Amino acid sequence: MQIGLVGLGKMGYNLALNLCDHNHEVIGFDLAEQARARLADKGVDTVRSLTELAAALDAPRVMWLMVPPGDATDATITKCLEVLEPEDILIDAGNTNYRDTIDHAAACAAHNVRFLDIGTSGGTSGARQGACLMIGGDRDAYELIEDALLDVTCEDGCAYVGPAGSGHFMKMVHNGVEYGMMQTIGEGLAIMRTAPFDYDLAAVCKNWNHGSVVRSWLMELIEQQLIAEPDLAGIKGIIGTSDEAKWTMQAALEQNVPAPVIAQSLFERNSSQMGEENFSHKVVAALRKGFGGHAVVTK
Amino acid sequence: MQIGLVGLGKMGYNLALNLCDHNHEVIGFDLAEQARARLADKGVDTVRSLTELAAALDAPRVMWLMVPPGDATDATITKCLEVLEPEDILIDAGNTNYRDTIDHAAACAAHNVRFLDIGTSGGTSGARQGACLMIGGDRDAYELIEDALLDVTCEDGCAYVGPAGSGHFMKMVHNGVEYGMMQTIGEGLAIMRTAPFDYDLAAVCKNWNHGSVVRSWLMELIEQQLIAEPDLAGIKGIIGTSDEAKWTMQAALEQNVPAPVIAQSLFERNSSQMGEENFSHKVVAALRKGFGGHAVVTK
Amino acid sequence: MQIGLVGLGKMGYNLALNLCDHNHEVIGFDLAEQARARLADKGVDTVRSLTELAAALDAPRVMWLMVPPGDATDATITKCLEVLEPEDILIDAGNTNYRDTIDHAAACAAHNVRFLDIGTSGGTSGARQGACLMIGGDRDAYELIEDALLDVTCEDGCAYVGPAGSGHFMKMVHNGVEYGMMQTIGEGLAIMRTAPFDYDLAAVCKNWNHGSVVRSWLMELIEQQLIAEPDLAGIKGIIGTSDEAKWTMQAALEQNVPAPVIAQSLFERNSSQMGEENFSHKVVAALRKGFGGHAVVTK
Amino acid sequence: MQIGLVGLGKMGYNLALNLCDHNHEVIGFDLAEQARARLADKGVDTVRSLTELAAALDAPRVMWLMVPPGDATDATITKCLEVLEPEDILIDAGNTNYRDTIDHAAACAAHNVRFLDIGTSGGTSGARQGACLMIGGDRDAYELIEDALLDVTCEDGCAYVGPAGSGHFMKMVHNGVEYGMMQTIGEGLAIMRTAPFDYDLAAVCKNWNHGSVVRSWLMELIEQQLIAEPDLAGIKGIIGTSDEAKWTMQAALEQNVPAPVIAQSLFERNSSQMGEENFSHKVVAALRKGFGGHAVVTK
Repeated sequence: MQIGLVGLGKMGYNLALNLCDHNHEVIGFDLAEQARARLADKGVDTVRSLTELAAALDAPRVMWLMVPPGDATDATITKCLEVLEPEDILIDAGNTNYRDTIDHAAACAAHNVRFLDIGTSGGTSGARQGACLMIGGDRDAYELIEDALLDVTCEDGCAYVGPAGSGHFMKMVHNGVEYGMMQTIGEGLAIMRTAPFDYDLAAVCKNWNHGSVVRSWLMELIEQQLIAEPDLAGIKGIIGTSDEAKWTMQAALEQNVPAPVIAQSLFERNSSQMGEENFSHKVVAALRKGFGGHAVVTK
Repeated sequence: MQIGLVGLGKMGYNLALNLCDHNHEVIGFDLAEQARARLADKGVDTVRSLTELAAALDAPRVMWLMVPPGDATDATITKCLEVLEPEDILIDAGNTNYRDTIDHAAACAAHNVRFLDIGTSGGTSGARQGACLMIGGDRDAYELIEDALLDVTCEDGCAYVGPAGSGHFMKMVHNGVEYGMMQTIGEGLAIMRTAPFDYDLAAVCKNWNHGSVVRSWLMELIEQQLIAEPDLAGIKGIIGTSDEAKWTMQAALEQNVPAPVIAQSLFERNSSQMGEENFSHKVVAALRKGFGGHAVVTK
Repeated sequence: MQIGLVGLGKMGYNLALNLCDHNHEVIGFDLAEQARARLADKGVDTVRSLTELAAALDAPRVMWLMVPPGDATDATITKCLEVLEPEDILIDAGNTNYRDTIDHAAACAAHNVRFLDIGTSGGTSGARQGACLMIGGDRDAYELIEDALLDVTCEDGCAYVGPAGSGHFMKMVHNGVEYGMMQTIGEGLAIMRTAPFDYDLAAVCKNWNHGSVVRSWLMELIEQQLIAEPDLAGIKGIIGTSDEAKWTMQAALEQNVPAPVIAQSLFERNSSQMGEENFSHKVVAALRKGFGGHAVVTK
Repeated sequence: MQIGLVGLGKMGYNLALNLCDHNHEVIGFDLAEQARARLADKGVDTVRSLTELAAALDAPRVMWLMVPPGDATDATITKCLEVLEPEDILIDAGNTNYRDTIDHAAACAAHNVRFLDIGTSGGTSGARQGACLMIGGDRDAYELIEDALLDVTCEDGCAYVGPAGSGHFMKMVHNGVEYGMMQTIGEGLAIMRTAPFDYDLAAVCKNWNHGSVVRSWLMELIEQQLIAEPDLAGIKGIIGTSDEAKWTMQAALEQNVPAPVIAQSLFERNSSQMGEENFSHKVVAALRKGFGGHAVVTK
């Protein structure tokens, strides 16, 4: 089937190739010329504007957005609605907050454009070779494009889960679970590294990935990293964040669900970014000085 | 090869069948007649004492203990050393604290008995069909029995990792990681269950197990549980504990390694066992009454 | 000075008496006849409607709201604005979310009514004998009534801290800190209670309240509770919550400030309310059964 | 009464002056000449060895140790027992692990020396002006010196709480509670500092210290620190640790008491010391790179 792919970054690029492998016709668009060129080099058609993209697609059009969440997605959806026609299908496959997604779905409905929100998991390798998709929105639209979705996903990795927003909500919580898994793996390996025994951490992970209770894709990934760079010596312990875990915590708070491990996993990341400028740590250091005359580390 | 298997509970029973499948000669022993009978029904030889077991095995003997940790393992090792001879091999494949394991290895060395500590993961199904083994102790002894170990493990699931204690230490930390993974899965599903969308939790797990970043054996297990009993309605939220996570925390404390997620996962279990008798919760409830006149729930 | 006090519950009642002790003229209003009667029994004037209250007060009127946050406060402010006149002063001294407070201030400004938000701490005894007030909003209005505020507060317990919302935000964070203090006291006493020594917990707290680093009003309060009921035997470990700690966490998330202890203190309360119905605990219990055949507690 | 004070550091020095203020005769000893000289400058007698100290004291002697815990205390007690005689009283007022204290008490008993373990709180100002003492050990010995203990403590700040070890155990848990209080104050102030309002943090603390629920000595201390150095600009967020919170966690683990807030407060300190070398953070950063191609911060 014919698909207009908007956003040709790491995820969009790989997804485009995956679709092409399965004989779908992809027409790609990205604001950045470099991103368009990279895909064009692989023999995929690209266009230079959403208007061109709409013109190039047969009705009912399918526009698949793979754009950073927030302002970029909001703006792109607004522009898409200017060029799409009733019955067209608009897909937001990024990490949009599910509340915004519900608003986007309403905006689409006002234009009689059919909307799907897709949570996309599996990283860049998944996008290339078989992703995991969590799909909410217009059920009829889903069924129209289901074959293409099945082509680019793992077996059983394509699920329609409910109305607009439900795909992104599910992906959001998925990321929360992911934060917790990553943190527990990190803690375990940190304990192994300073253990009273001298372990080969890559070998530890390899063993754990074969038959143990903790076998998992993340453990496989860190095994590969540790093989490539034992002790991760060149990497600083500063962890980036995207917003999904924060939103997962907000949902947990609203739903009065205790989520201590997911919360803590997020806080560790925030804290890793602060280093010695973590103000709560300054306060505690100052207090120790205050009552016990303990030395503080000064600048 | 010929192996004396001591302890025929869930793990020992399945391991015995696994060894037999691979044409090893198992002679089983358990204090409980019922456990012996269950294995004998499968055509495996059993004996009624460690003395009989030692007499039935050819030298150098291999005695593989699959016994609960603590007093039971301590006592069994003491008794084994009374019947074993120099060059025999004694394996502790239970969840013994690695410090005790170091003591056990020293006791074996005093008898010229060769000792191996094996951390065993993969649950009962792993024991039956292919376990994950983390092996410390006498390297020569390991090599003597390596073929049998490879037979009962998954491919790449058999690792010799260092001196006595290193196998059990590694299994201990594995369980700590496991606690964290289980807790984050629990939290994620608890958030999904009270989400503003109506999800089929088993279908959610199925999706996550196919191509997502959080795909893992534990996620597969809970998928099966949720299929069998949606909403886990018949299960109370009371979680058992064994000692490995506690010991992992003790190691983390000694090594000054922060392990907030593993700690929290253990505390959740402790707390789940206390219900309304959690004294810290009583104190907080009493305090609220104290300053704000808030009602407390009384007995 | 003359003050119209709206909301005569535990806090409003005590505050009214406190104001009267300092020779202020209080006119009280509450929707509940019983609450009005209780105050009237103390010789304080009460009225039966906001309209009556407005009529009874001299311009510029001062209306001090001590009403539950949320719908009740929203509705009361709306009604007050129907009866107040330009230059009158409206005070919200409840636990309103600071975002709502900013909206309320804007609504007041549209009526030329001067607005103050006051976070009130110190519990019922503070309201009666000397509260701690954190005050945001119209600075001129604050100065007009400062004398009355100083009368009902502890020395140095009355602070004007900034524009509308800043009083309630500060009180919100105060409550977050309070949650953490209460939880750490709870944990410490829980450890003391199961210690290898036989402590008198009330005596422990008494000691800690005299010269130790942890001396604090909350420790004094729990000392009193433990004297009254050693072991808190009649109290169940179920802790109520109000919304301020949740909002504090939301602020922390928005500000990317790690707040693990405040978060955990909130989660403990949520968890205490769930008992054996904590779904994350059910999931973990089910998983243990799944891989290890461990028994679960069934209903 | 006559007291031999061993260890003239920050705590011992202040305690000596406090005892002298109350007309007790102090003879001080410290290995460091500088420490002896500092006290001698205040007109207090000092000696240059434990042997001299024993000779200078009338029987039954009272030796009060204020020495760093661990090897220093162990060695000092061993040496004291060489110079003390039956019926003499030996006091360990440092932060010794309560298990070691039980051993020390047994060693003293073998010499018929009476032993007291004293947990000392209140910081250096408390030692000078009125400490909080938590006292375990020989009850008769306690009663013999009670008058001196009452002289150097706050009113109600001197408590005999049980057999040897109980004083140090109680002080250990006190410090655990202290960690939690400090961390929650730190978190609250960190949220206030990045709030949507511009607060004067010293003024915030001043307000909270007068009538609020969170009023406490620690809040007073941080108020003073913030007055002296707004924003704590010169202090790095690196927090020292002593061992008591670690031991409190070990006790909690052994007693199966969940202590999430105290644990987390300790982990924050460990983490603050690691900065970008926190290995668990490196693992998580590496994993993000692994699946999503996210950039890591490299060295």
